[in-house]
Amino acid sequence: MKPLKMKIDINCDLGESYGHFKVGQDQKIMPHITSANVACGFHAGDPVTMAHTVELAKKSGVAVGAHPGYPDLMGFGRREMKLSIKELRSYIMYQVGALQAFAKASNVNLQHVKPHGALYDTATRDSDISRTIVEAVLNIDTNLILLGPPHSMIAKTASQMGLRVALEAFADRAYNPDGTLVSRSQPGSVIEEPKLIVKRAKKMVEDGVVSAINGQTVHLGEVYTICVHGDTPNAVEMARILKASLLAAKIDVKPIGSFLK
Amino acid sequence: MKPLKMKIDINCDLGESYGHFKVGQDQKIMPHITSANVACGFHAGDPVTMAHTVELAKKSGVAVGAHPGYPDLMGFGRREMKLSIKELRSYIMYQVGALQAFAKASNVNLQHVKPHGALYDTATRDSDISRTIVEAVLNIDTNLILLGPPHSMIAKTASQMGLRVALEAFADRAYNPDGTLVSRSQPGSVIEEPKLIVKRAKKMVEDGVVSAINGQTVHLGEVYTICVHGDTPNAVEMARILKASLLAAKIDVKPIGSFLK
Amino acid sequence: MKPLKMKIDINCDLGESYGHFKVGQDQKIMPHITSANVACGFHAGDPVTMAHTVELAKKSGVAVGAHPGYPDLMGFGRREMKLSIKELRSYIMYQVGALQAFAKASNVNLQHVKPHGALYDTATRDSDISRTIVEAVLNIDTNLILLGPPHSMIAKTASQMGLRVALEAFADRAYNPDGTLVSRSQPGSVIEEPKLIVKRAKKMVEDGVVSAINGQTVHLGEVYTICVHGDTPNAVEMARILKASLLAAKIDVKPIGSFLK
Amino acid sequence: MKPLKMKIDINCDLGESYGHFKVGQDQKIMPHITSANVACGFHAGDPVTMAHTVELAKKSGVAVGAHPGYPDLMGFGRREMKLSIKELRSYIMYQVGALQAFAKASNVNLQHVKPHGALYDTATRDSDISRTIVEAVLNIDTNLILLGPPHSMIAKTASQMGLRVALEAFADRAYNPDGTLVSRSQPGSVIEEPKLIVKRAKKMVEDGVVSAINGQTVHLGEVYTICVHGDTPNAVEMARILKASLLAAKIDVKPIGSFLK
Repeated sequence: MKPLKMKIDINCDLGESYGHFKVGQDQKIMPHITSANVACGFHAGDPVTMAHTVELAKKSGVAVGAHPGYPDLMGFGRREMKLSIKELRSYIMYQVGALQAFAKASNVNLQHVKPHGALYDTATRDSDISRTIVEAVLNIDTNLILLGPPHSMIAKTASQMGLRVALEAFADRAYNPDGTLVSRSQPGSVIEEPKLIVKRAKKMVEDGVVSAINGQTVHLGEVYTICVHGDTPNAVEMARILKASLLAAKIDVKPIGSFLK
Repeated sequence: MKPLKMKIDINCDLGESYGHFKVGQDQKIMPHITSANVACGFHAGDPVTMAHTVELAKKSGVAVGAHPGYPDLMGFGRREMKLSIKELRSYIMYQVGALQAFAKASNVNLQHVKPHGALYDTATRDSDISRTIVEAVLNIDTNLILLGPPHSMIAKTASQMGLRVALEAFADRAYNPDGTLVSRSQPGSVIEEPKLIVKRAKKMVEDGVVSAINGQTVHLGEVYTICVHGDTPNAVEMARILKASLLAAKIDVKPIGSFLK
Repeated sequence: MKPLKMKIDINCDLGESYGHFKVGQDQKIMPHITSANVACGFHAGDPVTMAHTVELAKKSGVAVGAHPGYPDLMGFGRREMKLSIKELRSYIMYQVGALQAFAKASNVNLQHVKPHGALYDTATRDSDISRTIVEAVLNIDTNLILLGPPHSMIAKTASQMGLRVALEAFADRAYNPDGTLVSRSQPGSVIEEPKLIVKRAKKMVEDGVVSAINGQTVHLGEVYTICVHGDTPNAVEMARILKASLLAAKIDVKPIGSFLK
Repeated sequence: MKPLKMKIDINCDLGESYGHFKVGQDQKIMPHITSANVACGFHAGDPVTMAHTVELAKKSGVAVGAHPGYPDLMGFGRREMKLSIKELRSYIMYQVGALQAFAKASNVNLQHVKPHGALYDTATRDSDISRTIVEAVLNIDTNLILLGPPHSMIAKTASQMGLRVALEAFADRAYNPDGTLVSRSQPGSVIEEPKLIVKRAKKMVEDGVVSAINGQTVHLGEVYTICVHGDTPNAVEMARILKASLLAAKIDVKPIGSFLK
């Protein structure tokens, strides 16, 4: 096995405001991340917000990706919907295409696609949904990168179908021994101690492992990007510390597209 | 003044179904038109319908254009909305971008953009709205063609801003002496007699004129495309007769993009 | 066991247009039914359509009921959505309340509630969803009647919670031996022969049974209403024949509310 | 002219969250107001939020009213839409009816209706829109109270059509000499100094007048309710001071419904 790279990307969900409904603190978190997952209008992110977020990312040197979700604004894309293959494929193409218009107008290349919320969760285990997402992305642009969790159905499917995958890990979330995240409804599912988060992030990058909630070691494989959350009270400070600590540890923090083969 | 071309395009609004809500008879009308204005999800046209309509157009050799409208599904984009410039520009870019994804996946180039319903109407007279629409289209692709009525603010604005315009005329609608359409609420606004429609269409193409409802001659200028309606009971038959009659008169019927400089 | 009543209601889903998107042939089917399930805006039925449908029902002496669905216009409420109990309860109350405004303005009492599409299907088997629907209806008006299939979780739950239930049967759909409907994707799932439909309907009313697709007899219990479809090409003619045949067989055809204890 | 009452209501727009999109600080502001204008789902306020807000108001002894708006979630109901009379009437009835379901379930009577945003603004000057709103409210319940500005078309129309009106004033907004509000785009349009706001509120209640931005006295007539904003950073503190100051001045602060004839 080849040695792990000492390069990492930090990604964050952004552009989740919707008209008058303001969410997140996008401008403040931009300096501390390298890839933005931009909502595309179905679960969040009206067109004005999309245009604004792409410009904001560009100014901060942050790479832009699409964050398509279920057509469910009322549920923020967090509720599973039983879509047909044709529906899901079209919905993803529609959303990514819409974001591409803003990217192109800002003279920015779309770097990646990361499914949102319930769609992300379902894609980790469902092969039809995984295949459909990969197909949709390939239909749009075969150079796009898919973000997904290690050991997931979608990561496997993307690799098999010739779409580049960047495995992602969550430094502030507890893991089960099987590599899945501990559900937010469980105690201890979210880690809030900055030092611990940094420690875990380094281990993820340097060794490709994380300690599960029961202490067991979980092999994540070659992690290319760490996801930070933008909507918690201390999100900005946490992202700042994480990036600074990784840089201090001689780990290069940059957009996935710049180093993923 | 240069001689009028003996070439004409026939355009039609298509892809206006929305999920289970089926509108129009797209498949049947395709053979008799040369450009399709495809709804983009805001006033009609869900993503599955968009994907399907692009494929249908491609199979029929019909050129594909975007038909963006106000974000008003309940009103089918036929109700004026007071949007800010930033909102309108982003909404158009979003919709055209979304359609581009399907066009690209079907290996088709977007040919044109035609605003829908109340947006089309407002753009004929409002300079801010006209400029915003033109900006949005130029942001997407400077090779796109804008469809608009003769003597309209949007046609003038597009020309000034360097966007190609294809003037369009309506063979089945009565005209006021000033070149605007007689409102549908007026008697005699819609012409239903096929022979008369064909006669008017030929005059539009060959001489660039139409007889207004009061008998006066209206100069339309160089008409590049004739709009037919797809949602009337005899729409298919009417389109068939129109195309056949124009061809019989040695007028070449083909997509605008193939002959507009 | 008490003898079956020789009274029956005929119900039909109506008011499923949405603005410009026209669905069904409500006006023509009204004379042949006795209860209308009116869409409430979430999967179909904009407010103008709701107001119009209530008035139409009133003029025809047809009882009005609410037909709430998932918040999914793009999928016509036919796609399962994983809602929380709080969400589902509020969504149903919202929709039924909205319809009540039109009923009250037309001086009509709401007679019943029938969940739509995927919500109807899920409620036949899921106890949480069934309980939530019943709670929502009881919150609105304890005199309302719930329409549901025989042997279903929702029928059982409503009875236990003190909400009146009218069991419904489908004369034009094939049944499995367990009393569920044969899926539309199966051959033979829909019955189109008018004589056979009438024969089945009579047997449902008079004996409370239907022949399953394998010939076995399915006991439906006391059927109070037969559902007819309004969106098939021959829907109006079918409904006319059914009502006339039942009347000819001395079966009284009237709104459920007039005879359900 | 009869002496002005020393009673006043304080109203505030609430329940404007939408699913995951959280707006305002409803719980904190409740103790300092007496009437809540609850969003009804078209411009804001999903059903879960509506149910929750009604319960919250009830617990705080705050009267509940409906706050219907244009069907424009993306624009928060702040963009004028050209609706037909039939559309506007149905949209208002739909929204108020939906809220009534939650009010009834919480054993609360709806007290009032206040149009939202662009609809409120248009109704101050347009007679068709005013008449349509009043008709819609009367269709729902003739005991409801309409909130509107002094000297407005809607206040006049409601009086003429037999619907009770409670004139409202804005203590924290500057007035033009003609009694309209100074547009938010103008300097000095919003007053932020608590002492000044309290002083103006007292004058509105005690004398029915306010000083216009040019110093002229504007006669407002008998003001029954003062509107406070819930979405500014210091909204809660401002509302607290206002209510406490009015009470200290021996002005009774209570829901309009308790003292409007």
